[in-house]
Amino acid sequence: MKAAQPIGILGGMGPQAGIDLASKLVAHTRATKDQDHIPSFLYGDPSIPDRTQFLFGHTTVNPAHHMVEGVQKLYALGVKVVGVACNTAHSPGIFDEFKSQLRSRCPDLTIIHLIEETVAGIQSQYPHIKNVGVLGTEGTLRFKLYDNLLVKAGLNPIQPRHQDALTPAIFDPKTGIKACSSPVHGAAVQGLVDAIEDVVAQGAEVVILGCTELPLAVPSPTHNLIPLLDPAVFLARALIQAAAPDRLLPWRV
Amino acid sequence: MKAAQPIGILGGMGPQAGIDLASKLVAHTRATKDQDHIPSFLYGDPSIPDRTQFLFGHTTVNPAHHMVEGVQKLYALGVKVVGVACNTAHSPGIFDEFKSQLRSRCPDLTIIHLIEETVAGIQSQYPHIKNVGVLGTEGTLRFKLYDNLLVKAGLNPIQPRHQDALTPAIFDPKTGIKACSSPVHGAAVQGLVDAIEDVVAQGAEVVILGCTELPLAVPSPTHNLIPLLDPAVFLARALIQAAAPDRLLPWRV
Repeated sequence: MKAAQPIGILGGMGPQAGIDLASKLVAHTRATKDQDHIPSFLYGDPSIPDRTQFLFGHTTVNPAHHMVEGVQKLYALGVKVVGVACNTAHSPGIFDEFKSQLRSRCPDLTIIHLIEETVAGIQSQYPHIKNVGVLGTEGTLRFKLYDNLLVKAGLNPIQPRHQDALTPAIFDPKTGIKACSSPVHGAAVQGLVDAIEDVVAQGAEVVILGCTELPLAVPSPTHNLIPLLDPAVFLARALIQAAAPDRLLPWRV
Repeated sequence: MKAAQPIGILGGMGPQAGIDLASKLVAHTRATKDQDHIPSFLYGDPSIPDRTQFLFGHTTVNPAHHMVEGVQKLYALGVKVVGVACNTAHSPGIFDEFKSQLRSRCPDLTIIHLIEETVAGIQSQYPHIKNVGVLGTEGTLRFKLYDNLLVKAGLNPIQPRHQDALTPAIFDPKTGIKACSSPVHGAAVQGLVDAIEDVVAQGAEVVILGCTELPLAVPSPTHNLIPLLDPAVFLARALIQAAAPDRLLPWRV
């Protein structure tokens, strides 16, 4: 096998999300010994301000600036392909600024887009599906990160009618997944299950777990036979495809 | 809380070991939101040659040289405290050379020693225990990485009498944990359980899972009530203690 370009992961949003993405890179790489793997750098950067807070105008500090600084550190190490392990950070208000600043500072850097890869992955792996449940932070849902791209792809996005349970499942300082992830608190699991059943009751045939914390709470790939899709899987596969396509394992759920 | 120094992890030996250590850093850090965590850089470096092969003289390339290059990359990013996520790499033939080269190149870098921290952790957390089972790669066992430090601490190391099952559990290109870690193959789990029962039959009161792949195969903290000790936990806690002692959570199994 030829030498692979190092893959960069901007993590820390939350801390387990980048780690989870790094783990999926390994799981989807064809390798029988340590030396077959693709070099990678994971930066767990806690200095990046909360993305949801910015989108709702509670702060004027665009997290994009901190994200650019983090990626520049990875770029200085030779990283030429990078993924950001956070759904909310992919909202246009943040991600467009991030990409624009990086285009001039790191001109030959390939930035893989989590949401675009997820929608493309649904189209190729679930070609007969029309109705797609979308869960995520308030920012992801309100700003329709998935919805807009799903509609453009001819799919029908379905958000939960009752979002009250999902925000504390992610953010509650005692029981939320960001505060308490190993193991996840029962209250957070219940909040997520309620939201899944909400979109399924509205007709969802697959459900996107569109916040990097959510798959930590429901590790099973299905709920009552409905596929639960982890966007990090699609991102990991796209990163491998960009860095070392000959090492990408075949798709498996 | 005051700003924390970034923690560096040299990973890739195998690929999941560094990821697992990063995850333990998060789990042992006092935090209620993303921004409370400690900045960290994980380098998954597959270019580091096999440590066991070197120790047995099958190659003359000391992995220490590659390890030094990797740590220098992390140091250039501002890392001042680093851990190496590999047991075998801590054998004196490799680690002494690694430390010696780093001392001149990165003079203010603190290198936390996985084996020393594990022995110190046993002394403080299990003060009444005398007999300590030690599992690991052939290199770790033959070169007595844990045994020598355990004896120095007044403890009695016990190695498995039959090591035939442990090497394939780690290295087999089809069923070994390095090739197949999510999920681990049943044959690898059985090989490890056999080795645990071997040292317990000889009187071990706790068992060190002294290869970073092994805890992936037995996630439970005990086997028939005998504590299984994951050295990565002791390393993670020592790294937090060095970088941001006010954020170290109390000990829990």
